[in-house]
Amino acid sequence: MTTAVIVAAGSGSRMGEEGNKLFLKVNNLPIVGHAWKIFDLHPDIDEVVLVIREDASFEFENLASEISPIKPYSFAFGGSERQDSVRNGIRAASENCEIVAIHDGARPCVDPETVSNAISAAKEYGASVSATKIVDTIKLSDGHARISQNIDRTHLWSVQTPQVFKITTILEAMEAVDAQHASVTDDTAACELIGQPVILIESKRPNPKVTTSADLPFIQFLLQG
Amino acid sequence: MTTAVIVAAGSGSRMGEEGNKLFLKVNNLPIVGHAWKIFDLHPDIDEVVLVIREDASFEFENLASEISPIKPYSFAFGGSERQDSVRNGIRAASENCEIVAIHDGARPCVDPETVSNAISAAKEYGASVSATKIVDTIKLSDGHARISQNIDRTHLWSVQTPQVFKITTILEAMEAVDAQHASVTDDTAACELIGQPVILIESKRPNPKVTTSADLPFIQFLLQG
Repeated sequence: MTTAVIVAAGSGSRMGEEGNKLFLKVNNLPIVGHAWKIFDLHPDIDEVVLVIREDASFEFENLASEISPIKPYSFAFGGSERQDSVRNGIRAASENCEIVAIHDGARPCVDPETVSNAISAAKEYGASVSATKIVDTIKLSDGHARISQNIDRTHLWSVQTPQVFKITTILEAMEAVDAQHASVTDDTAACELIGQPVILIESKRPNPKVTTSADLPFIQFLLQG
Repeated sequence: MTTAVIVAAGSGSRMGEEGNKLFLKVNNLPIVGHAWKIFDLHPDIDEVVLVIREDASFEFENLASEISPIKPYSFAFGGSERQDSVRNGIRAASENCEIVAIHDGARPCVDPETVSNAISAAKEYGASVSATKIVDTIKLSDGHARISQNIDRTHLWSVQTPQVFKITTILEAMEAVDAQHASVTDDTAACELIGQPVILIESKRPNPKVTTSADLPFIQFLLQG
């Protein structure tokens, strides 16, 4: 059984000027609704866990009415750090879950083929992540807007989500994070702590994360394309 | 006097399946025509040199008729490597040129404010480049699609064009490249050889390079935005 864990607990002020970015609408559906639908309709996904803010249950119940999901879904509550939210989501998966696909609720454009490829790789190797090769020239700055070094981009990748794992693997990796009091930037970094290789799955389409309402025209363009 | 050098000599087969990507049309004007117009209309630019393929003079004369440039322009011919093309372009600048702004002909979306900021910085410090901070998580692969290392992105920038220089500085840097038989990935890398600092100028808008016709919808979206 494969569970999608959609991290939609947000950060910052939900009622700030931007409102909750996850609920910004594109094509009449909130950003996080698009993300939910992609996993709900995906043939390799059996259930969806949404990790939400405790005060957002009402909005997400409304969203469920709007989407009418065909797969079982449940809610978990976010923690203080992203890794706490992810852990709460994984714990809410069904008992017979073998694979978890962790996805940012603010990435509504991921293509189903990339999701399939990432799930296949995680089943075979234990861990995988959606990624794109870096094509621009990359420079290291000195911290004061001056170039200090040219960086060889040959083997550089930019990683997004989904990040997909055997559930036993990610739980073991998270225990290592706790035991070492480590702070990790993303879920694949936890795998490094236990020597678990992570397979890079080249994303077939741009898979940006919405950060402000200024991103919406591009997101709309991608969702219509 | 400030000269824009637009590198439009292309590479690969001009008559290949994609045709010449520089002549792909967006909003009824070829990509390279948009780039030319931005510099032609820019108040800080006094003349434009286009570095073109020897067999493309006819197309560029036609393009000039279509654009009706208000600033003086001239053509130089491309060399075997990008740095040869850039050098030919710089040599074609007017005798009283002090600043050169080198720009990819395949980047039609650069915003005028970024061009102004880059020119100001080059006047003050000698060299500058349009750039954006890396916001995604970056990983180094082992060359076989596995993550081998987490990369700290704090000081990483992706650089584009324009790359702007005092003409004396870039000519000195290019001499150093020749003397050391160095191969440089971009014009700012030549500056590293002579210890010339390069200022990173944060680009105000996405400034992508067209590589195939698949990029056109996004380019069109940006040019309409």
